[in-house]
Amino acid sequence: MADHDPARDPLYPDPRRQISPQERDALIAALDQVLPTDALLHHEEDLRPYECDGLSAYRRLPLAVILPHDLAQARAALGICRERGIPVTARGAGTGLSGGALPFPDGVLLSLARFNRILELDPVRRMARVQPGVRNLAISEAAAPHGLYYAPDPSSQIACSIGGNVAENSGGVHCLKYGLTVHNVLAVQMLTIEGELLTLGGEALDSPGYDLLALIHGSEGMLGIITEVTVRLLPKPERAQVLMAAFDDAQTAGEAVAGLIGAGIIPGGLEMMDNDAIRAAEDFVHAGYPVDAAAILLCELDGTEAEVSEQVMQVRNLLLDSGATEVRTARDEQERMRFWAGRKAAFPAVGRISPDYYCMDGTIPRRHLGRVLGGIAELSRGYGLRVANVFHAGDGNLHPLILFDANVPGELEKAEELGGQILELCVEVGGTITGEHGVGIEKINQMCVQFQPAELTQFHGVKAAFDPEGLLNPGKAVPTLHRCAEFGAMHVHRGQLPFPDLPRF
Amino acid sequence: MADHDPARDPLYPDPRRQISPQERDALIAALDQVLPTDALLHHEEDLRPYECDGLSAYRRLPLAVILPHDLAQARAALGICRERGIPVTARGAGTGLSGGALPFPDGVLLSLARFNRILELDPVRRMARVQPGVRNLAISEAAAPHGLYYAPDPSSQIACSIGGNVAENSGGVHCLKYGLTVHNVLAVQMLTIEGELLTLGGEALDSPGYDLLALIHGSEGMLGIITEVTVRLLPKPERAQVLMAAFDDAQTAGEAVAGLIGAGIIPGGLEMMDNDAIRAAEDFVHAGYPVDAAAILLCELDGTEAEVSEQVMQVRNLLLDSGATEVRTARDEQERMRFWAGRKAAFPAVGRISPDYYCMDGTIPRRHLGRVLGGIAELSRGYGLRVANVFHAGDGNLHPLILFDANVPGELEKAEELGGQILELCVEVGGTITGEHGVGIEKINQMCVQFQPAELTQFHGVKAAFDPEGLLNPGKAVPTLHRCAEFGAMHVHRGQLPFPDLPRF
Repeated sequence: MADHDPARDPLYPDPRRQISPQERDALIAALDQVLPTDALLHHEEDLRPYECDGLSAYRRLPLAVILPHDLAQARAALGICRERGIPVTARGAGTGLSGGALPFPDGVLLSLARFNRILELDPVRRMARVQPGVRNLAISEAAAPHGLYYAPDPSSQIACSIGGNVAENSGGVHCLKYGLTVHNVLAVQMLTIEGELLTLGGEALDSPGYDLLALIHGSEGMLGIITEVTVRLLPKPERAQVLMAAFDDAQTAGEAVAGLIGAGIIPGGLEMMDNDAIRAAEDFVHAGYPVDAAAILLCELDGTEAEVSEQVMQVRNLLLDSGATEVRTARDEQERMRFWAGRKAAFPAVGRISPDYYCMDGTIPRRHLGRVLGGIAELSRGYGLRVANVFHAGDGNLHPLILFDANVPGELEKAEELGGQILELCVEVGGTITGEHGVGIEKINQMCVQFQPAELTQFHGVKAAFDPEGLLNPGKAVPTLHRCAEFGAMHVHRGQLPFPDLPRF
Repeated sequence: MADHDPARDPLYPDPRRQISPQERDALIAALDQVLPTDALLHHEEDLRPYECDGLSAYRRLPLAVILPHDLAQARAALGICRERGIPVTARGAGTGLSGGALPFPDGVLLSLARFNRILELDPVRRMARVQPGVRNLAISEAAAPHGLYYAPDPSSQIACSIGGNVAENSGGVHCLKYGLTVHNVLAVQMLTIEGELLTLGGEALDSPGYDLLALIHGSEGMLGIITEVTVRLLPKPERAQVLMAAFDDAQTAGEAVAGLIGAGIIPGGLEMMDNDAIRAAEDFVHAGYPVDAAAILLCELDGTEAEVSEQVMQVRNLLLDSGATEVRTARDEQERMRFWAGRKAAFPAVGRISPDYYCMDGTIPRRHLGRVLGGIAELSRGYGLRVANVFHAGDGNLHPLILFDANVPGELEKAEELGGQILELCVEVGGTITGEHGVGIEKINQMCVQFQPAELTQFHGVKAAFDPEGLLNPGKAVPTLHRCAEFGAMHVHRGQLPFPDLPRF
């Protein structure tokens, strides 16, 4: 847009040239040649709904939004962008939390919303072949009559699309036991920026050649446009039961998590909430949580009748031995759903007690849960901002919610800085700056903390192998070395260089 | 070597220049500067043991074999090779079955045999950090006192090394339930051809940036030199039980496999043997197999006491309902071990009934087991060569053993051609040309059948992002388009082009 100066845009440290109004008009005209009227938006009011994804702190308008109906249209439009050197950002349902689908101001936003058909669902082969715009939950709904479901269940599963799940390698409550998106996808069909259609993976356990299927997972739209996804379906467990354990302090709860996993239990879900989160959720949905507890654990066990019955007893004893002050097993399916309703409503519930909140996503080795929760509390006091914790304890995936008021000048910046500090604390204990929300634009600076220059250079090499001109979703996920140098963090890598005294050649 | 003419070497369709004796001497002298005497072999008699790996049909002598003691030596030697444009092939234990560690005649073979230390084993974090030359089984042995083990168990697990397991993404009897190597490795440290040390992955469930950890799995030494591997350890199952089911014909046995999986059972192992294999194994180890059966299935169930007891009954009934003529449950641990001993000895047992055999490795969707076994029998008759079948039925990973006599002129070539036909049959039904043995040099032509030019081009792009000069293990795993054109198979891809009438740009 005319009001955009790339040289000053903090999101794009290595800006591309700004395109002229003439170039923009010529681009729209060319796209208009290959797309039906309803598949090309370019008036400002039509572009507004696409200015951000779930990370609403950053907003940019693209030059145009295209909504192709089929592969031929997508390919033709992509060809036009490529010829003219126009960046393309793909967008699924726009529920991403790290700004991965934030439009590039001098680029085109490619929405896959119309790629929304389930092409094949075979209960015998336990697979579904779907278009990328199909909603996550819609797959499980279609599979339900056959007693099957699609396992990864991000909180946004009602709305988020499977293509976006692949791009972000989404997790969910059940990923400790059932894995991330990459563990549940058999094949992906994608369009390269050159317009080639690639089939990655297949129905066999392994595929020869380099594992491009895994590579595309979590690549945040930087390597290609996903046009079809084949997912694995699982049989619904015969029985599920949930236990809720209350603790006097969060550290003890953290240690109980390590104890459960150490005893060889792999729960279907293992979630933790601290007192702020418990109170907010209880006020909102009346889940029956103990509001005086410093922390609760929700532990879901699923499997056959025999297996679940045996494990419920074992887990109950383990939790009590670990110092739980109270352990309750859901009396019936209704109570089980209520226990989960509280957890699932925790984010909006926190939204009720604070004008704004900033949801973080970092992962740490489970054994450091106690230490990191302590560190977060300390940072919270230092910044004078409350932090509620609701998270996937089983896989050490933290979701600290930083409470702030965007109307108080400086609070957003303070919240962002606190968030950055929390992520760096995660890296310090051997964790990572993202569990399941991706890097996008939100955590691009922390990538400089997580990786060494050699590793970032290798990432850029891989990117260039797919997209040599850098047209796919520029400015996201992998920072340039220049950016890291500016961020001043290249010297830090897990405390030290791994082999500082080795000869270099 | 002087007797090698690259232009005529069928293994290298796009040969590099042959190096002169002067260049060779200068290379040896340079390597001698950075390596201790016992780490550099270059006399022909010292090179002989390295002329092939487990695929003994192909043999080549490298210019030199290097056996560095540590990372600094490996890095220095790699730098010398890179400066001079000398190809480097990494080798673990040399047990690979597809020729992945076959030396390049004008190159250096880098053995990681001396990288054989377990650096860290933490039973609480359930992980072991080991050097790449550590044997697969040695990890489980070291973990055993803690009740833990490393799950992937290729047949060669006594001898094969973990670095080679990563390079080939090895499987084993238990990979249906516990996954391939990629599912059991947390992190890999590797040296790039430029001498940079990269850390891929970590202890968290997911890692930001492109998934280079998955990419390195199965990359057959073409992207980097693996210098450290961190593996996940699992608790040993409380109980394991095995059922043996006999069938009147192989197709019924194949359908029983689909039936078991369809019923939601995920056995720890699910193996099938046909009559030729049953007889050979029974003669050799007296496992107690029914020698008149057309096929047997061995189904191992593992887990908690309660789970296994429940599943044994269920599997027994399912097998009988699927047409098994007899189902036996191992009466005790001794009988269980005997049932497995027969399966594990099947390859050497077949070696006793035929002068030579050629072990194939293809994977097919389980539902086509019956059809493909029928097709193999027909090809076997057509070529006049017996084929015994012993395989991982649960994940559709076939291991047809083609029996032949290398002393009969033309039989090796016939066996190879038959093998190629079997692999193409696998691709035809939607399978792949390798399950767990890799592509190496053995199946490089079949890669032209498996993939389209666009996919192969993408593979080459990824390769170039790691190794732009193509110095790491040249001639393996991913064929050049030129080679495929010569093989004449570029027009075949799962029967047809997926979108033949789409516009191209």
